[in-house]
Amino acid sequence: MKYTIGIDYGTQSARAQLLNISTKGVVAKAEEFYPHGVMSEQLPSGIPLGKDWAIQDGDDYFVMAINCIKSLLATSKINPEDVIGLGIDTTACTMIPLGSDLEPLSSNPLFKDTPNAYVKLWKHHAAQKYANELNKIAEQRGEEFLKRYGGKISSEWSIPKIMQIAAESPEVYAETSCFADIADWLGYKLTGKLYKNNVTTGYKTLWSDTTGFPSSSFFKDLNPLMEHVVEEKLSEEILEIGQRAGFITEEVSALTGLSQKTAVAVPHTDAGVVPITLGMGKNGQMIASIGTSTCHFLLSDTLKEVPGICGVIKDGAVPGFYAYEAGQTAVGDSFSWFVDNFVGEKLHVEASQKGVSLFSLLGQKAERLVPGESGLVALDWFNGNRSILVNSDLSSVIVGLTINTKAEEVYRAILESTAFGTRKIIENFREYGVEVTELYACGGIPKKDPFMMQLYADICDIEIRVSDEALAAAYGSAMLGAVAAGRSAGGYENVHSAEDDLGLLDFAIIKPNPKNVVAYDKLYEVFNTLHDAFSKDNSVIYTLKALREAAKA
Amino acid sequence: MKYTIGIDYGTQSARAQLLNISTKGVVAKAEEFYPHGVMSEQLPSGIPLGKDWAIQDGDDYFVMAINCIKSLLATSKINPEDVIGLGIDTTACTMIPLGSDLEPLSSNPLFKDTPNAYVKLWKHHAAQKYANELNKIAEQRGEEFLKRYGGKISSEWSIPKIMQIAAESPEVYAETSCFADIADWLGYKLTGKLYKNNVTTGYKTLWSDTTGFPSSSFFKDLNPLMEHVVEEKLSEEILEIGQRAGFITEEVSALTGLSQKTAVAVPHTDAGVVPITLGMGKNGQMIASIGTSTCHFLLSDTLKEVPGICGVIKDGAVPGFYAYEAGQTAVGDSFSWFVDNFVGEKLHVEASQKGVSLFSLLGQKAERLVPGESGLVALDWFNGNRSILVNSDLSSVIVGLTINTKAEEVYRAILESTAFGTRKIIENFREYGVEVTELYACGGIPKKDPFMMQLYADICDIEIRVSDEALAAAYGSAMLGAVAAGRSAGGYENVHSAEDDLGLLDFAIIKPNPKNVVAYDKLYEVFNTLHDAFSKDNSVIYTLKALREAAKA
Repeated sequence: MKYTIGIDYGTQSARAQLLNISTKGVVAKAEEFYPHGVMSEQLPSGIPLGKDWAIQDGDDYFVMAINCIKSLLATSKINPEDVIGLGIDTTACTMIPLGSDLEPLSSNPLFKDTPNAYVKLWKHHAAQKYANELNKIAEQRGEEFLKRYGGKISSEWSIPKIMQIAAESPEVYAETSCFADIADWLGYKLTGKLYKNNVTTGYKTLWSDTTGFPSSSFFKDLNPLMEHVVEEKLSEEILEIGQRAGFITEEVSALTGLSQKTAVAVPHTDAGVVPITLGMGKNGQMIASIGTSTCHFLLSDTLKEVPGICGVIKDGAVPGFYAYEAGQTAVGDSFSWFVDNFVGEKLHVEASQKGVSLFSLLGQKAERLVPGESGLVALDWFNGNRSILVNSDLSSVIVGLTINTKAEEVYRAILESTAFGTRKIIENFREYGVEVTELYACGGIPKKDPFMMQLYADICDIEIRVSDEALAAAYGSAMLGAVAAGRSAGGYENVHSAEDDLGLLDFAIIKPNPKNVVAYDKLYEVFNTLHDAFSKDNSVIYTLKALREAAKA
Repeated sequence: MKYTIGIDYGTQSARAQLLNISTKGVVAKAEEFYPHGVMSEQLPSGIPLGKDWAIQDGDDYFVMAINCIKSLLATSKINPEDVIGLGIDTTACTMIPLGSDLEPLSSNPLFKDTPNAYVKLWKHHAAQKYANELNKIAEQRGEEFLKRYGGKISSEWSIPKIMQIAAESPEVYAETSCFADIADWLGYKLTGKLYKNNVTTGYKTLWSDTTGFPSSSFFKDLNPLMEHVVEEKLSEEILEIGQRAGFITEEVSALTGLSQKTAVAVPHTDAGVVPITLGMGKNGQMIASIGTSTCHFLLSDTLKEVPGICGVIKDGAVPGFYAYEAGQTAVGDSFSWFVDNFVGEKLHVEASQKGVSLFSLLGQKAERLVPGESGLVALDWFNGNRSILVNSDLSSVIVGLTINTKAEEVYRAILESTAFGTRKIIENFREYGVEVTELYACGGIPKKDPFMMQLYADICDIEIRVSDEALAAAYGSAMLGAVAAGRSAGGYENVHSAEDDLGLLDFAIIKPNPKNVVAYDKLYEVFNTLHDAFSKDNSVIYTLKALREAAKA
């Protein structure tokens, strides 16, 4: 029996799985929470943080990895020698400034009271003004790289976060030997070698395998301190997903009981690891990970410039394909917002009498409506728009409300709005010459909500494969651990053979209903009209946002 | 001591007041309900009614008048000889087909199972298709009268209701000697003489004091049966508000104890009687009666063609002034719709813990916001738009929603939308050369909700006089009763002297807050942009309505 371990780091916790390669069964699971949690108000010492901060303690990650491994081994009682591989994935872009000892700068007593020395979590949005500056400068300079990222760089990515450190805490910037992706640093802690992975570096740090990083002259324009940031602080070798990063160190072996022969895979991102988990590997396959927000990856053998996407990376999800990333900022979030705040008491009473959740009562009532019956269309911009407009200033619009409109009608309109948003993303790819032929769905919502998936199938006029394993990222990382171990050790030669053997192919298939497809085509035209009108430069949405900010000031 | 009686007929009941002219005090009140209620499902015999029907039994009105008078006299124990006048007002346009005996045709055994023989209540909307036909024909013929009514005739008015009878029940049409306004018929029952009042005839039956009714050729185009409808069935003499219709008949005297010397005023409409109640009588004074919907009357010494209004009548509210009528279809209705259906459980719990109504909790929270803070703007088209678009196909739009939007923010945005709608009506009058200088507010909401009135003052940048007497129509009718009695009998020479003496001048004055006025000017621009965009011929609102109707079919 040979085993492999996968650890998936989310925002709240890390979830780990121990996978038996021979039986293809998950034999143990573990979950560990961040000892310091997400800090958004203050540092442990009480130093207050500004608006939109979200930081973490870097050491937490390593402690959790050790504890996850120990827990899996203790629960399963297997022989640790039989664990041939280990893979990890994390949120992205979550980055950490490291000192010259390659340890977190925040662990250096000199910097423990300096917020900019800590891990900046993906959802740290306090670098927005640096992102705006970067976008302005890149546009003025006509930087070609912008096109790879749909024309705009997000505040969630590396460079705006580094700009924030350089501008606000130059002493931290000076002392940083390396701005590492948290997954790569964790790889270093497990193997003793620091590399960059091609996915985070490509999607989040403006690097491409053909043109490298932006020029030093560009970085100098961002901040003179940053002129040589690439050579000085981003210079590690870049390895590709599917490769081996190294083997477990003596220290980790001693801490966990794993053998030093255990191979460690090049770390991946939590969203990016899912396609291999599901056995994807064909041109035109798209996956939507639908949870609080939605992340899409599209596999393609074609490289095109597609506006409004998050990025495109060669081998970014499955080796051999370009992986285009796109996203919707508020999906489950907008459903929860509505259900938590805008459903009257009568339906609460009805739900409790029937012994069902409010979500499921609304779903049942909404399902009885036919397309168009509510007379409503909404835009899915409840937290801005990622793709295809890349604009966090946008907000939502609902059209068609009357004094007869019911809660389940608005609920359905919000579900539909997110499906229209997905269709817009698909049509945008097609318009720019990138095929989309199959849609996979995974994440926290699809398996729980077949009605919603039926809406997606009808609205996008596409068959949907809904994955049975809702939270499969740890499984995918375990697969990469087995690839890192290689065939001779009992693992796999490459990602494709691991996919053939271990890919989760147990899908529920949702087919579009032809009658609904016709009805939704007309409603999508309305969505499109609103989409275009309200995203114009003179949109009243911007006026309302400016007035809101003025009112709050 | 001299007394006067006013009876105000609403949709659910009639409310009566006995007023002591010398002390200016209301000494007794009474309320009577319609014995047959509003019939919208079936006749008393079980004959089913169609969609949107709302009919009544005509005899109910007379029974209720007798009972109200008896109750007032019994409660107050005054000497009935001291009651010098009586005034009545009713909803409009509520009309009744009368037989050759001037009794309700529905009381004729031949027609008791014929729905079209009954009183058609103002909100009987089953004549919509006849209204559409009338508007089309009037427009094709270039009928000048359309301009007096803002370009469109409502299904609630007389002629569409008569068209329905002629088309669907020609035997009822043939047997009708007179299509009377219910108030005028009630006047006949009290005095023995049948007249028309100039207000209902002007606002609802397409008559004007200068040009009379539309031509027989127009009526022939509507339906050949109707060619001579004016001469045959609408030919009574027209009296003006403020005149005397006659004196109490022997029969009514016997039934009630009132003296046959009791004068009866020309009957008025429930909305139209309010301005005199409040002592209004200056050019540029506008009143908004704000309840489930809002009705506006504007007094002016100028006659202009103003598009989008409901109508303009000489002496229509206060003698000596043109009275322009305008309206908003859903005001309190849209607040109730939101509060009843779209406020989550947390706020229900908070309201019950604090022992306040959900309305008042939302109001308190909404009041703490500053203009623009919610980032929301809504259109007040939750039940179509009466003024200034006269379009029942419109529905509402809310712009600016995010996952951080709170219920009290949407609530405030809906309140604001109705104030923006009022501002639009005011600005439309000004644009077409009719001054608006003062705003009065009365009805079910203003006195209860000073916060909402503050929003109206800030948004319309106008001082508002909020009437202390929320339901003052019966009081106004009592005033008209005293005018009908005349000075020699202890009453008044004319409406103006009655107003000077009895007008309710106890107002709460709400002044605009200059800072909020500036902020709301900017939000009103957004409202205006949406108003124009969504009422265009190619508006997606019409597409959504058509798709909704197709979905339901």
